[in-house]
Amino acid sequence: MAKDAFLVGLIGSGIGPSLSPALHEREAGRQGLRCVYRLIDIDRLGVPPEAVGDLVRAARDLGFDGLNITHPCKQLVLAHLDELAPQAEALGAVNTVVFDDAGRARGHNTDVTGFAASFARGLPDAPLDRIVQLGAGGAGAAAAHAVLTLGAGRVTVVDALAERAAALAGRLNAHFGPGRADHVPADALPGPLSGADGIVHATPTGMAAHPGLPLPAGLLHPGLWVAEVVYRPLETELLRTARALGCATLDGGGMAAFQAADAFRLFTGREPDAVRMLADITGLAGAVTAPE
Amino acid sequence: MAKDAFLVGLIGSGIGPSLSPALHEREAGRQGLRCVYRLIDIDRLGVPPEAVGDLVRAARDLGFDGLNITHPCKQLVLAHLDELAPQAEALGAVNTVVFDDAGRARGHNTDVTGFAASFARGLPDAPLDRIVQLGAGGAGAAAAHAVLTLGAGRVTVVDALAERAAALAGRLNAHFGPGRADHVPADALPGPLSGADGIVHATPTGMAAHPGLPLPAGLLHPGLWVAEVVYRPLETELLRTARALGCATLDGGGMAAFQAADAFRLFTGREPDAVRMLADITGLAGAVTAPE
Repeated sequence: MAKDAFLVGLIGSGIGPSLSPALHEREAGRQGLRCVYRLIDIDRLGVPPEAVGDLVRAARDLGFDGLNITHPCKQLVLAHLDELAPQAEALGAVNTVVFDDAGRARGHNTDVTGFAASFARGLPDAPLDRIVQLGAGGAGAAAAHAVLTLGAGRVTVVDALAERAAALAGRLNAHFGPGRADHVPADALPGPLSGADGIVHATPTGMAAHPGLPLPAGLLHPGLWVAEVVYRPLETELLRTARALGCATLDGGGMAAFQAADAFRLFTGREPDAVRMLADITGLAGAVTAPE
Repeated sequence: MAKDAFLVGLIGSGIGPSLSPALHEREAGRQGLRCVYRLIDIDRLGVPPEAVGDLVRAARDLGFDGLNITHPCKQLVLAHLDELAPQAEALGAVNTVVFDDAGRARGHNTDVTGFAASFARGLPDAPLDRIVQLGAGGAGAAAAHAVLTLGAGRVTVVDALAERAAALAGRLNAHFGPGRADHVPADALPGPLSGADGIVHATPTGMAAHPGLPLPAGLLHPGLWVAEVVYRPLETELLRTARALGCATLDGGGMAAFQAADAFRLFTGREPDAVRMLADITGLAGAVTAPE
């Protein structure tokens, strides 16, 4: 008999508002599967991020099929896995763990594959010669890997923490080849932006708790496309401003939906309907955002 | 929104063939609930019975709603719980743990309530003045508590391990009052049986791996009722022999179904259809038993 019940969870900090339980449980329900998706919040448990290894082992022992992993555990979990998928190994970060029947834990990164799928779907004809990437944290690293995998010529990384931007650019060059990435300080943004094809935005600015624009509005110009990682709200001030200028835009809902869809496929072995999951995101992210 | 998803499991040794996942998941499905029920087998995990405390804590941390506990952990788990229901405290054994929203673990014993419910349903008019109880292990202790709770006059405990019979009789007298229980060695069985109203059978004899009769057939007589704890197979040699003599009989399926139904109620807060669960037992236990 085909397996019809799945037990998964999310380990991270401050994950109470996560949409992942609803995304996975709804898609499973539509496919006639029983899925229970649990939030395993290290803050609520009062344990440090380093406890992720114990939590992963416990989940395996108690019969979980897999886990999603989020901030601040995506790097820390690496040491506790048996195998890594290539994109997770390249990025040095895991957001999805799958247990096989022998209890071996394999790490994946569906932030990378999810951003790539969302981008390919939402901005299929976008030129990729020169890209400016704002934000060199975990989401930014995943997005940069994704656009370089899609064939981007060069990604210029900008971050308020200059050393973090330099480190990401160094890792990207090491993986994708010399010259595929560089970095500039935030006050040098006008130069690379003037000749850029598009912007990938991966800082928290624009989220409900961090309203505003991540760059001076005057630096945007109609020739740019703008791809957002933030998805709550789906309509950020950056996207609104860019669209008013005539820029092609991509909101963060696609990355959120496609990373979940890719994780769903890994957990269940079933093909998710990612577009249906994207519609769920639109409904769910809209529902939790105050109207503007 | 009412909670509609439940995550539970069973901790014990050699539990691979357990019917509990099917019982709980089927009843939940009929009630429109999603339930995932996982087997947490200490043998498969390679951990000792004393690991039950760590496993209970891990289950709480990972979002389980509750657990069933079976051999050899029913007593060991006591030290790791925050509260005990009266029947669990009296018996000194727990087969069901429920986590509340604050993460507190409360222990119950639905073997006691399950046997009592099965007996009251299956042998409602059985005289309870003198009962012989074969087997003083965990199931036997639960059954003895149940029949004394139902008003049995006196239970005479017999076990191949004389000291185990004496210890159970002592605990029963301490809880239910002096004179409610005694014990005799196995070779003294004819005396109490000749004047008994009924037999509760709670040894492994009659299970597929331990075929046969738990007492000489000649000691059975038509005035006895016979209640079985063994439920795989449902039709044991003891029940068949007793029924041929004209004895009223009760198979072990009722205890199995009603203990699960009582646990389901504790896990979910919903009222189970115990008779429907009993029909499941009949189907499931029949399906795993070789035809005779």
